[in-house]
Amino acid sequence: MLTLYYSKGSSALAAHILLEETGAPYVAAEVSIPTGEHLASDFLRMNPKGRIPVLDTQGGVITENPAILEYIAAAHPSANLLPHSAFAQAQARSLCAYLCATVHVAFGHKNRGTRWADEASVIAHMQRKVPQNLATCASYLENHAFVGPMAIGAQYTFCDPYLFLVGRWMAACDLSLAPYPNLNGHHAEMRTRPATQVVLAAHGLD
Amino acid sequence: MLTLYYSKGSSALAAHILLEETGAPYVAAEVSIPTGEHLASDFLRMNPKGRIPVLDTQGGVITENPAILEYIAAAHPSANLLPHSAFAQAQARSLCAYLCATVHVAFGHKNRGTRWADEASVIAHMQRKVPQNLATCASYLENHAFVGPMAIGAQYTFCDPYLFLVGRWMAACDLSLAPYPNLNGHHAEMRTRPATQVVLAAHGLD
Repeated sequence: MLTLYYSKGSSALAAHILLEETGAPYVAAEVSIPTGEHLASDFLRMNPKGRIPVLDTQGGVITENPAILEYIAAAHPSANLLPHSAFAQAQARSLCAYLCATVHVAFGHKNRGTRWADEASVIAHMQRKVPQNLATCASYLENHAFVGPMAIGAQYTFCDPYLFLVGRWMAACDLSLAPYPNLNGHHAEMRTRPATQVVLAAHGLD
Repeated sequence: MLTLYYSKGSSALAAHILLEETGAPYVAAEVSIPTGEHLASDFLRMNPKGRIPVLDTQGGVITENPAILEYIAAAHPSANLLPHSAFAQAQARSLCAYLCATVHVAFGHKNRGTRWADEASVIAHMQRKVPQNLATCASYLENHAFVGPMAIGAQYTFCDPYLFLVGRWMAACDLSLAPYPNLNGHHAEMRTRPATQVVLAAHGLD
């Protein structure tokens, strides 16, 4: 059985929702970032990066959201979470890479500025640019990456719960998805799904 | 036939080397970042992100290094560039995601600081932290991610030419791979391969 190590409200939400979508049993083990459990020696032995999420497959651990999400999809073929063609798989991976390396990184400059700077004034300056960068990302996703009705077309795939996080990152910066009707519709659709609702409740989120 | 849009010396080097490893014909089309060709309207129509590399599959374009690299591997099964097991594929994707979202982003704060800050003094401050961050990444790769002799084991896979870029990013910050014998050995091994040598020469690199 797969075990997901997550922190409430973190980006592990995506993998948690996807596991719930599979309909298969899994274990969700909380490792609280706010209380520093991700820096405890036991956790660092499993993931020396000290990052969440981690997926324990019982044959080894997997880190990084894009890899975890696609592994969950591939491990549950009957749930039909993997795109069918090589090109559609590449589209899904491309979207995940953009979410991971551009959108999440843009958001990371809000609360994780110490990764890239040491002085408080510099970190505060970077924080002020975050809403502008997230809005640029949302415009790109809205106009160029989103296919519809789900992220890469008709099928719900492993990148949909990751795209769902964009609305949460925007909200954390007091930005609305309303100016982005495609993203807004996707976010609303995701919220109607039982798997999303179960996992949001487990994370103590609205 | 696949067409790779690249800029000399950019991170497109990884996909270019992988294409050469396939042994199959391909087209490499230069889009020079130094002369701003990545911001020309024709290129932005193909990739509104204005980033390199782009892979044109003739059935649609793919952006983002992890997606491009795995597509090239999957499109040339006889070249044996795709890991065989689901877990090994996840390891390769995890490494690519770390290279894309952590290592490349850490390096990006050297010359692309305007993505995250507007003031010259702030950008200069971020630049000063880049060598420290790259060294942290190299230590993680050396001690925890690298399997050997290639990135994820005996097989040369689609993440090897991406890992090769780490040595170039380090050198651009006057950092040596010598303190990291696993990475240093991998870099040296990559340099012995004809595909690497052909592509380095095409990019005008030593």
